[in-house]
Amino acid sequence: MRFGIIGTGTVGRTLAAKLISLGHEVTLGSRTKDNTAANEWADRSGPYGHAGTFAEAAESGEIVINATGGTVSVQALTLAGAERLAGKVLIDVSNPLVFSPTGEVSLDPVNTDSVGERIQREFPEARVVKALNTLTAPLMVDPGRVPGEHNVFIAGEDPEAKAAVRAVLVEFGWPEAAVLDLGGIQAARGTEMLMPFWLRLMNHFGHTDFNYSIKTAE
Amino acid sequence: MRFGIIGTGTVGRTLAAKLISLGHEVTLGSRTKDNTAANEWADRSGPYGHAGTFAEAAESGEIVINATGGTVSVQALTLAGAERLAGKVLIDVSNPLVFSPTGEVSLDPVNTDSVGERIQREFPEARVVKALNTLTAPLMVDPGRVPGEHNVFIAGEDPEAKAAVRAVLVEFGWPEAAVLDLGGIQAARGTEMLMPFWLRLMNHFGHTDFNYSIKTAE
Repeated sequence: MRFGIIGTGTVGRTLAAKLISLGHEVTLGSRTKDNTAANEWADRSGPYGHAGTFAEAAESGEIVINATGGTVSVQALTLAGAERLAGKVLIDVSNPLVFSPTGEVSLDPVNTDSVGERIQREFPEARVVKALNTLTAPLMVDPGRVPGEHNVFIAGEDPEAKAAVRAVLVEFGWPEAAVLDLGGIQAARGTEMLMPFWLRLMNHFGHTDFNYSIKTAE
Repeated sequence: MRFGIIGTGTVGRTLAAKLISLGHEVTLGSRTKDNTAANEWADRSGPYGHAGTFAEAAESGEIVINATGGTVSVQALTLAGAERLAGKVLIDVSNPLVFSPTGEVSLDPVNTDSVGERIQREFPEARVVKALNTLTAPLMVDPGRVPGEHNVFIAGEDPEAKAAVRAVLVEFGWPEAAVLDLGGIQAARGTEMLMPFWLRLMNHFGHTDFNYSIKTAE
């Protein structure tokens, strides 16, 4: 399948490399055509790895992944072009982290809105699925880094789109039962608001190789 | 030990009953002296269970527990009296849930503040520990309702106070290793902001007998 990834940071490149290793074709999209990280990634990635603009990534992808920072995601996807996202599964991996000058981290939007909802509102023809925004990039594509059973979460309005994302997650190595469907895109508020807790856990453990396992009585 | 519980809702009464069963003395404090739920609870609870005002509960408790709704906690604790909280361990179990007319749930405060921090600011001589606000009341005092290993979280500025709360949690049945210390009281932002996620999990599972187990690579 052809994937277009919007954003060339750690998350974008980690997902891109995994998708290539699974035999998919990937265009890693950056704001400008001369992005060094993206071009070097494409050079290293064989015939199925390409670098391009946000628009080129969105155009080529059958599934598009938003791997930009949540505070700039709508802007980046606008550059990608609403018409190139229409009808497509759009996996939103972002978190809207805002870093204050004193090092405090907060979220914007938060509480009564989320990046996931905002993207779905701004691009109503895209089939947005919030996913993978609750864990560190290496773990997204290699769940076995953390032993035992632990979970990833999906949210979105379109059941077929969620099924497609679930299939991608299973390709990444997530057991089918580890993928919990939290409902409509408004549930993105819930997973985005995990970030402040996640940051405290990172401080507690001193690393990022951890994840949530939801234990139930049944 | 003597506990004063501020708030007579499900959380307050559940904690009170468990503390009595463990041999502690409990005053369940309500806004007014003629609170039916509190008086009935005291009548049922033998010689170590008492009903009283917020002030009487705070006065009698060596450890005080805030089990009011997070949006009214500062007001309730003001009625309890700053002088009666001074120097005491104050366990804050609250979440600042706000219900909109359409049934949407949000938090206030959130993101750049929390109830835990607000209480510590308003009552600087109290030794506030945020704890137990991440799970349903029956599970707080009976972790075995959910099989396997899962976690509770503490946050606060005073190490001795956190040690005292840890001891209470161990009395409740939590394994020592299940209690994760997330740092200072600002970490209350992290645990309070779990609530929107928790509500989606409740919808997903159709019950509240679930909890977070943090899995790590080490």
